[in-house]
Amino acid sequence: MMDPLAATVSRDAMRRISSSLRLVAPALGVSTPSATRPLPFASPPPHCRQIRSGSSSSRRPYSSTSNAASAAAIQNSSSANGHHVDSEYVISMINGTVPASVASQQPPSPSPSPPLSSAPSSATSSASPSRQPASAAKSDGPEPSYSSVVTGYELYHHPHPFPLEYGGMLPEFHLAYETWGTLNAAKDNVILLTCGLSASSHAKSQPKNTRPGWWEKFIGPGRALDTDRFFVVCTNNLGGCYGSTGPSAIDPRNGIRYALRFPLLSVKDMVRAIFHLLDDLGIGKLHAVVGSSLGGMQSIAAAAMYPERVGRLVSISAAAVSHPMSIALRYAQRQVLMADPNFGEGDYYSGEFPWQGMKLAREIGTITYRSGPEWEQRFGRERNEQRPSLNADFVIESYLEHQGKKWCLQYDPNSMIIISKAMDLFTMEDRGVDGQPDLAKGMTPIQMPSLIMGVQSDILFPSWQQKQIADILREVGNQYVVYYELDALYGHDTFLIDVVNVGAAVKGHLEQSKDNEDLD
Amino acid sequence: MMDPLAATVSRDAMRRISSSLRLVAPALGVSTPSATRPLPFASPPPHCRQIRSGSSSSRRPYSSTSNAASAAAIQNSSSANGHHVDSEYVISMINGTVPASVASQQPPSPSPSPPLSSAPSSATSSASPSRQPASAAKSDGPEPSYSSVVTGYELYHHPHPFPLEYGGMLPEFHLAYETWGTLNAAKDNVILLTCGLSASSHAKSQPKNTRPGWWEKFIGPGRALDTDRFFVVCTNNLGGCYGSTGPSAIDPRNGIRYALRFPLLSVKDMVRAIFHLLDDLGIGKLHAVVGSSLGGMQSIAAAAMYPERVGRLVSISAAAVSHPMSIALRYAQRQVLMADPNFGEGDYYSGEFPWQGMKLAREIGTITYRSGPEWEQRFGRERNEQRPSLNADFVIESYLEHQGKKWCLQYDPNSMIIISKAMDLFTMEDRGVDGQPDLAKGMTPIQMPSLIMGVQSDILFPSWQQKQIADILREVGNQYVVYYELDALYGHDTFLIDVVNVGAAVKGHLEQSKDNEDLD
Repeated sequence: MMDPLAATVSRDAMRRISSSLRLVAPALGVSTPSATRPLPFASPPPHCRQIRSGSSSSRRPYSSTSNAASAAAIQNSSSANGHHVDSEYVISMINGTVPASVASQQPPSPSPSPPLSSAPSSATSSASPSRQPASAAKSDGPEPSYSSVVTGYELYHHPHPFPLEYGGMLPEFHLAYETWGTLNAAKDNVILLTCGLSASSHAKSQPKNTRPGWWEKFIGPGRALDTDRFFVVCTNNLGGCYGSTGPSAIDPRNGIRYALRFPLLSVKDMVRAIFHLLDDLGIGKLHAVVGSSLGGMQSIAAAAMYPERVGRLVSISAAAVSHPMSIALRYAQRQVLMADPNFGEGDYYSGEFPWQGMKLAREIGTITYRSGPEWEQRFGRERNEQRPSLNADFVIESYLEHQGKKWCLQYDPNSMIIISKAMDLFTMEDRGVDGQPDLAKGMTPIQMPSLIMGVQSDILFPSWQQKQIADILREVGNQYVVYYELDALYGHDTFLIDVVNVGAAVKGHLEQSKDNEDLD
Repeated sequence: MMDPLAATVSRDAMRRISSSLRLVAPALGVSTPSATRPLPFASPPPHCRQIRSGSSSSRRPYSSTSNAASAAAIQNSSSANGHHVDSEYVISMINGTVPASVASQQPPSPSPSPPLSSAPSSATSSASPSRQPASAAKSDGPEPSYSSVVTGYELYHHPHPFPLEYGGMLPEFHLAYETWGTLNAAKDNVILLTCGLSASSHAKSQPKNTRPGWWEKFIGPGRALDTDRFFVVCTNNLGGCYGSTGPSAIDPRNGIRYALRFPLLSVKDMVRAIFHLLDDLGIGKLHAVVGSSLGGMQSIAAAAMYPERVGRLVSISAAAVSHPMSIALRYAQRQVLMADPNFGEGDYYSGEFPWQGMKLAREIGTITYRSGPEWEQRFGRERNEQRPSLNADFVIESYLEHQGKKWCLQYDPNSMIIISKAMDLFTMEDRGVDGQPDLAKGMTPIQMPSLIMGVQSDILFPSWQQKQIADILREVGNQYVVYYELDALYGHDTFLIDVVNVGAAVKGHLEQSKDNEDLD
């Protein structure tokens, strides 16, 4: 498939970089055998102890490992494995496709689950990340349960060429999907659940995969998406890496992974792909399409693209048009990732995995996903160590480290790039009579009952953007628009966490009697 | 001074990394001679042109160079110079200390002012940044005029050991400062202007340096800081790189640059250093201390540390206690910088300059300094190119690129790390009677007339933090607290730009008759 010599050269180049990196960039400020330079940490004077923040009962430290323990943990994980992380191994673990060259051997590095240091460590730390968060790095706050999903889904195969909005095409594609509940005879009890950037089809545990899904508590008998009433369908996004066709998939035309030769996608492309699956399942009209974040963009797009097939719309913490602030934040994430020397041009699959770029991108992402009010309550100015240092000495810093490490080997970087770019490009604007972008025109088809929900502490998809969706729907004549603005603490991630506030609103909207919406 | 062999080895290691980087990381998606791989850009279908955002008269494109021109510009700057940027040269240009080894030769790379590409380019672009923004990359919006300042300042030398809050010490230090206006005979007309992270002493043009300063329009006859009335003093922060002692300075104890052996500083250390200068100038009581951002933290600290010497306090867009959200944002910036392979442990001075890490850090910084409302008006969804691509195709993206490139060779990375960490650690809390941090106690000395000002669109130092300062001052009995909340568009940067709103409030406060504040 690949030129073996080219692969070897490439890997050699990678090793050369890594060994250089080890030469010049050992863990900053963490004592390792090779770090003989005096460190920039001085003994704290009494006043330093004074400024240490008190731990009120509402604030729990995120981790409190000692400096000595941290150094030992880093030594443990770095001495045996270095910080080499083999891409082939990572990608095969992420999307469950284990090529022969990988299956026949132990991965050169890292060991599948080295002890994850919860230690304060800089970005230049030599500690390898782990695919599983170690118990030492436990979280005391609510966290979404995203994970890589390699099994337990169904696979839809679209064997025909699939032209794309921005001019590219896929010769064929797969979509991974899962379902919960029972499809009724009329096939009119279907809820399509659309997904965020990082999500898999695994929204809820089910017999083929019993691990908790990312909307575990929102789906089930009597829950927000009531599986006693509804048949819920969720797909892994086109462009993703959890079973659906994305950059890590093999291009059938040449037998090598697409990498960034994968064409640019639009959100509407993702929606069209899902409706091909629905066609294949014989599902005509949906009871509702429900989505949050990128999933909310998809739900809005689905409602406008297939108004006759969407009975109800639920959009949570999304946008009708991407805002320059969100574009800037996602651009920074992509830039940071692509600056990882292991990233290359995105053809890292045969070399080392750009885990450090992914880790940093996720750290930036985490800042945009959560909120100031939650962090104030949860972390305040709590410190891991009394002595100030350039390590992650504030608990909020080690929390970011942990989030970065936890995620960086769970997702394909090229999928992140392709899907995050699709979010930037998203707009429901259509060309108006004057040739200018016209949001009202693009939203006009959406006349079905619609629930729009936002969170005041969301900085990535601010609540004013949700209000904009509700306002424009009302402006174009939709008489069934419900708008809720939540004062939840979790920022953008609220939709993944706050089942009480979010779940009840969704359930009410989905199960509302038609009579109540009869305005005549 | 340095071990020549060690320096050679280190530089060799750096070159090795760079050549590897060139091997694996050519400009992504920009055609260069070495990029033979098919690029992930497909021809746009008609619909792509439809979604192109219209240019309303209020939105001006930030740059509109064509793809071909961009590629050519990058080729120009990369073919001759590669992306090597020599640290010794950069640092000598930043802080005006040209060592013999540098002065005697042409810098190996880059040429002093290669053409700066305003081109869309990824973080992995091989284009070198330029110290001067090229005219091609012009800005159509208001921008602060920070620049490196290597001449025209006075130098205060503190020849004694200077112990620091977190336990370190400096054997001696220099502070660069500039003044405007005339010190009166009573020496009671002094305004101390304290500085933000990136600022130099050059707040205003003056005979020895006629370039505009960073508060050019706020200082002068009849202006907010009226030089017909007041003698204005501004210093480059301790820890900085524009003449004051910081990590790029030579440690007199061993003759080599401090780098990250420079001790951790606190904001209060910076303030104490400035008061040594004031002592040296024979200045007892200040008419006022005025500062914004980090400068605001310093002004608050000065008012509490030297209440008998501070007549009035002005704090704009600062904080009394750093918030975990701000800490997280600054941590991400430092992490991104330290992940640059050229950063090493901060001992890059004898090798290649970590410009890429600085550029990425500044891009993140720029997002936090500006605001959504301004970007919505200024950039909207304007595109550089009709065809979507992974380059900076939104104008907001090329704006970030430009800001990163403009700044990345103007500031010493280690100074950024040391000062940004001091901001994280900043708190006005003192230890209360129960041993817990007590903000009210720490703020109690501040009983002089105080102007506290915030900006509603500031995400780095949100307006609620300004309100917190005003509230706590009132709580501890200060009867002269003025609080203004501005609806300005420029976010945190408002204090650098909005002379109409910010300037008038400052002027009014500084020139308020004492009679008006006599509450008896």
